[in-house]
Amino acid sequence: MSRDVLYLKIAKSVTEQIKSDTLQFGDRLPSLRSAQKLYNVSLNTVKQAYMELESRSLVESRPKYGYFVRQSSQRKLALPSVAPMKVAERENTAEVLIDKVFGTIDGSDDVTQFALGIPGKSFLPLAKLKKSMINVINRKSDSGTDYEPVQGNEYLRRESAKWALVLEGKISEDDLVITSGAMNAVYTCLMAVTKPGDSVAVESPVYFGVLQAIQQLGLKVVEIPTHPIYGVDLDALKKVLPSLSACCFVTNFNNPLGFQMPDENKKELVKLITEYNVPLIEDDIYGNLYFGAERPKPCKFYDEAGLVMWIGSVSKTLAPGYRVGWVAPGKFKEQVIRQKLVQTVCSPSIYPDVIADFLEHGRYDHHLRTFRKKLYANYLQIQKSVTEYFPDNTKISEPKGGFMLWLELDKRICTEDLFDEAMSQKINFAPGRMFSQYNQYQNCMRLNYALEWTDRVESDLEKLAKMVKKRI
Amino acid sequence: MSRDVLYLKIAKSVTEQIKSDTLQFGDRLPSLRSAQKLYNVSLNTVKQAYMELESRSLVESRPKYGYFVRQSSQRKLALPSVAPMKVAERENTAEVLIDKVFGTIDGSDDVTQFALGIPGKSFLPLAKLKKSMINVINRKSDSGTDYEPVQGNEYLRRESAKWALVLEGKISEDDLVITSGAMNAVYTCLMAVTKPGDSVAVESPVYFGVLQAIQQLGLKVVEIPTHPIYGVDLDALKKVLPSLSACCFVTNFNNPLGFQMPDENKKELVKLITEYNVPLIEDDIYGNLYFGAERPKPCKFYDEAGLVMWIGSVSKTLAPGYRVGWVAPGKFKEQVIRQKLVQTVCSPSIYPDVIADFLEHGRYDHHLRTFRKKLYANYLQIQKSVTEYFPDNTKISEPKGGFMLWLELDKRICTEDLFDEAMSQKINFAPGRMFSQYNQYQNCMRLNYALEWTDRVESDLEKLAKMVKKRI
Repeated sequence: MSRDVLYLKIAKSVTEQIKSDTLQFGDRLPSLRSAQKLYNVSLNTVKQAYMELESRSLVESRPKYGYFVRQSSQRKLALPSVAPMKVAERENTAEVLIDKVFGTIDGSDDVTQFALGIPGKSFLPLAKLKKSMINVINRKSDSGTDYEPVQGNEYLRRESAKWALVLEGKISEDDLVITSGAMNAVYTCLMAVTKPGDSVAVESPVYFGVLQAIQQLGLKVVEIPTHPIYGVDLDALKKVLPSLSACCFVTNFNNPLGFQMPDENKKELVKLITEYNVPLIEDDIYGNLYFGAERPKPCKFYDEAGLVMWIGSVSKTLAPGYRVGWVAPGKFKEQVIRQKLVQTVCSPSIYPDVIADFLEHGRYDHHLRTFRKKLYANYLQIQKSVTEYFPDNTKISEPKGGFMLWLELDKRICTEDLFDEAMSQKINFAPGRMFSQYNQYQNCMRLNYALEWTDRVESDLEKLAKMVKKRI
Repeated sequence: MSRDVLYLKIAKSVTEQIKSDTLQFGDRLPSLRSAQKLYNVSLNTVKQAYMELESRSLVESRPKYGYFVRQSSQRKLALPSVAPMKVAERENTAEVLIDKVFGTIDGSDDVTQFALGIPGKSFLPLAKLKKSMINVINRKSDSGTDYEPVQGNEYLRRESAKWALVLEGKISEDDLVITSGAMNAVYTCLMAVTKPGDSVAVESPVYFGVLQAIQQLGLKVVEIPTHPIYGVDLDALKKVLPSLSACCFVTNFNNPLGFQMPDENKKELVKLITEYNVPLIEDDIYGNLYFGAERPKPCKFYDEAGLVMWIGSVSKTLAPGYRVGWVAPGKFKEQVIRQKLVQTVCSPSIYPDVIADFLEHGRYDHHLRTFRKKLYANYLQIQKSVTEYFPDNTKISEPKGGFMLWLELDKRICTEDLFDEAMSQKINFAPGRMFSQYNQYQNCMRLNYALEWTDRVESDLEKLAKMVKKRI
């Protein structure tokens, strides 16, 4: 048999296994070497077969990790719906609900934390961080008592700028300002470019922390309809853009929807904000947690006018408690530095050096590679389990990175009520109502899947699905 | 000779030495034991003599440190003047000047830093801090990666509350919110109780950081005439109080004037704000650096209505770079916590544990005792040197604690110009213009005396005085 026919034969065999559910969505195909032995063919033939399957969108490759059965091959559950633009309805951020959900996070080790916005400890290089911190402290003659420069630790700015390869050299250490995590960067950017009464566009659903900040600052929130795959609806945005003082978007692996805004949309977004001279606060904290082949570009990459304020941090990837973030505020740098000065004088010492040390010596890259693999495996797992346990009318997001999954349940479900029942079973999650200033997403929930996938977690997800089923 | 006569004879002898300048202002009297040998009398007789001198205000005692010739006995230089209320004049914070002065502080080890707002490193327990930090890191199973609670580290809140003896049990750990230093507490309190366009009262002269924060927040600054010994003029304050949204004062060892507001004035101030229902942001960061016998009460002690937001930090006493502060926001606690949440989510970890550890094991008290002694010695030194080197028409503040000295020079002196000349000689200081939104205090300067008093420092102060003399 010729090699051509051979690889097609293997591809056909795998396709049949997928169609018959022998190989299910999320399952890993045999490794190239195993398949080589299995089919008794050359390595190249297996590769060709797998590439053929990939070209038919039946499987997808994860560099250094293998080939996996794709969701799109036989997606059972639909995508979440896009909420229409709401302006007439009375606004009301879900403060009480947010406080309640947050209250279940503090130190309750016995709760399965689907609500958490940060990775579980087992995903973090705790021993290396500890070692690095002790090294830094021993190296510092001032024991960390000296003030940092207002703009931020120079070592960290230098290493962050060098490390931001995705921007292809568009920023230098002088373009960065260190902040107390990304949320503080968002807050400081809002302070720098808006005044009370101004309007700020966000996605919908949107991370509740941003909603709260905007409202605390006396600003108006404009929720833009947002597609679960493509991100904000640029046509809808364009209509309101002239009335906006800023946009605040998570363009890569959005929280909660998980989308990666396509490059074309990013270019178009930058073109639009440039035309209307509206700053874009781009929160890119999940950008390095990609499932695809490479780190996606942020809008910042396409920005020529200095309007994009690009934000990064290590809170979602390495050390939430350190509160280390940064922003490249473009032409608003001086305003951002002045805001930082009056807010806190400067950032705390030590931590910036620890992070810079991690960046400089490649430890951060090494950690990210491992972390991404684990996250992707967990994503496949939760995707599979949700498909298996939840009702068929459940709609489910298709994150391209990060660790947030968005579910839209049957209209009859109120996830705020469900939350109470789940908590009584020591399971939590983030109810959808938290993610809008309007009375919507009550039948939605956000699940964090960056947690050690134990039998308990699997069984708790099944329990949660049962609670849902019981209610419809 | 009876003991009565003996002690009077000793007192007389010392008085004569003071009058003849043999013993000069700031000099230490012989210790009790030395004097006992010198005069060949009993210890009690010496004590009685020194107490007699003290009752005549010729000397003052410093617990555990000895007796010193008092400034008031032969004060050569006058007190600084009180600026009248200014409202018509155009406002203009000295941003450019502030930036210039701050720019000379970053890492220039070869400049004599009279401008600095923090103690020199030789005053801080660096080795103990390092040790404590390494202990804390080794103890933490999460390597500090976990989020702190929004309100702040419980251990630190508990220890701070226990340690705040001056409040005689009026606050508990639940009343405190941890902040990123005191400046962040001031900022957060302002955010919690004001909205843009509101007016906030401050002292005049006033710490420029507070001026900048108030203006960045779109608030109006009302500078209240301030006496160098008694603090804000309560009659002047009363007149504007109905139009204010907040007061923001440093009541103990004010920066820059150094006064300790008398208890009676504090009571009256609290009475006034209670009557008009105006919150008082009380920045008490210097309160533990007293030269007198005991830690002065803050206004918080007299507050029954929960209107006083009492702020503390370790930035002026222990570890500026850690950015650890706290506030007891009275009835505004919920607003303060919500502000903190949207600003930064939570405080960085590790540092709060290090500080709590210092508090719990008495290391902070131990350090403060040593620090106060050194500061007082330095104060006497700078007071003496200024009196000796500067022109006789120099007016000089009389700090009762802290480490800031305020000089008012001849009207012909512009300290902004003087600053440039001083910097060319590698000497800096804070020009008076920085301490007001109005065009005033140009002939004033603030000198930090919490620096190792070397021959170089002494000779630089003399150089500075010569530059002043040359200009009049």
